Amino acid sequence: MEIIGERINGMFKDIREAIKTLDKKPVQDWAIKQTENGATWLDVCVGPAAEDPTAAMKWLVETVQEVVDTPLSLDSTNYDLIEEGLKLCKRPALINSCHADRYKIERVFPMAVKYNAKVIALAMSEESGIPKTADARVGLAMELVAAADEFGLPLQDLYIDPLILPVNVAQDHAIEAMETLRQVKMLSDPPPKTTVGLSNVSQRCNNRKLLNRTMIAMLMASGLDSAIADANDDDLMETAAAARIIMNKEIYCDSFVELYKTNHYK
Amino acid sequence: MEIIGERINGMFKDIREAIKTLDKKPVQDWAIKQTENGATWLDVCVGPAAEDPTAAMKWLVETVQEVVDTPLSLDSTNYDLIEEGLKLCKRPALINSCHADRYKIERVFPMAVKYNAKVIALAMSEESGIPKTADARVGLAMELVAAADEFGLPLQDLYIDPLILPVNVAQDHAIEAMETLRQVKMLSDPPPKTTVGLSNVSQRCNNRKLLNRTMIAMLMASGLDSAIADANDDDLMETAAAARIIMNKEIYCDSFVELYKTNHYK
Repeated sequence: MEIIGERINGMFKDIREAIKTLDKKPVQDWAIKQTENGATWLDVCVGPAAEDPTAAMKWLVETVQEVVDTPLSLDSTNYDLIEEGLKLCKRPALINSCHADRYKIERVFPMAVKYNAKVIALAMSEESGIPKTADARVGLAMELVAAADEFGLPLQDLYIDPLILPVNVAQDHAIEAMETLRQVKMLSDPPPKTTVGLSNVSQRCNNRKLLNRTMIAMLMASGLDSAIADANDDDLMETAAAARIIMNKEIYCDSFVELYKTNHYK
Repeated sequence: MEIIGERINGMFKDIREAIKTLDKKPVQDWAIKQTENGATWLDVCVGPAAEDPTAAMKWLVETVQEVVDTPLSLDSTNYDLIEEGLKLCKRPALINSCHADRYKIERVFPMAVKYNAKVIALAMSEESGIPKTADARVGLAMELVAAADEFGLPLQDLYIDPLILPVNVAQDHAIEAMETLRQVKMLSDPPPKTTVGLSNVSQRCNNRKLLNRTMIAMLMASGLDSAIADANDDDLMETAAAARIIMNKEIYCDSFVELYKTNHYK
């Protein structure tokens, strides 16, 4: 289970301030803390407030890479910005994210191949928005899988995101997302990987951590390979470790939680 | 989500002693505690050590019913013993359990109809043991569904148990159990209900509660309706409450955990 640590994001006040003042400490502290708690990837997002987003992305990438060698997930809707980050990444990165619109695919997939990067691809498009049904999402996922083949992006480098909405506003979507995951895993051989923005499920809800960790177990039962999530939520990480064991992805041993958190098998 | 509280069982030392000395207090304490924490049913099992199992079953049923009106799950491999208990139950009970062997079905299903009881029916038989694959389990489940129809047992009164084994000895079984649940839900309309002996998954494992609550979320994503479980494990009950919300079985409200535990919607 690949956890993409969500914390280095300009949406959080400490990171926003750090970007503004070029204070490396909060960024590097989170890079280390998330890595030490088992994050496989570190998401890096400048957020909407940065005055010079390109400079901010480059600074974030370099600042994180000074202290950890955890691979990065470059998070933006601006693909030029992502490309500037990709040029600096020491290890193959994850592009977060591409929609299922043809013109976006044509921009992102060749860039991923060029930089040996992986791609989070969302089962939504400008025309369809976030589809209500699993069938419609799988239809978009199928287009993404076909495009990966077309542009030479290996299917195991394609991370399909079925999209998660908050349960307090779109409660009927979670079941559709689970069904999407199941069907996506049958689209090709090898199948694409899968991911979600986990914390979305509990936006503005009570019991956020409970909902997040319950959701990750349910999604893992449905075929989830990775999630953008709070890597420093110990209960969440332990749930992921247990779900890996239950899904028979790692051989049981008594210290399975510790092994998972130390990235022993990822 | 129906939780069948597992605690009134002669396998536990305090209950074994209570049966031996006819001390009502431990039995009634557990009956109240499990009910107050959200148990929908109370499992009642005399265990292997009782000198007079029939007398013990009757005493347990009467002792529990003196303090709560929570319906009972009568747990024994001795069907005559179960029938003695059924005669005393004030509310329709659950028979725990029947295997998929014809001669057992012929004994149990008519008894269930006679006493207006429900039946936990296991996807195993003397010939097949616990099958390894989901397909073989679903085959046995299909026989149980057909038998329910034959004997006039309503399908919503049939609880199919796909069988759970400990992850440290049979790690490849959990995935098969989940797949069994999904397929069982497609066998008939209305579908049969489903249940499991949840704590089996973590027998002799480390992190038992973590494994139990992660497993229940994963099974609920696959179609689980109920579980024989530790109703006094707060984290487990909260996970069940969250999974109900995620599966869109109850409308989200901020107090969903409290409502679940107080049996508000069951």
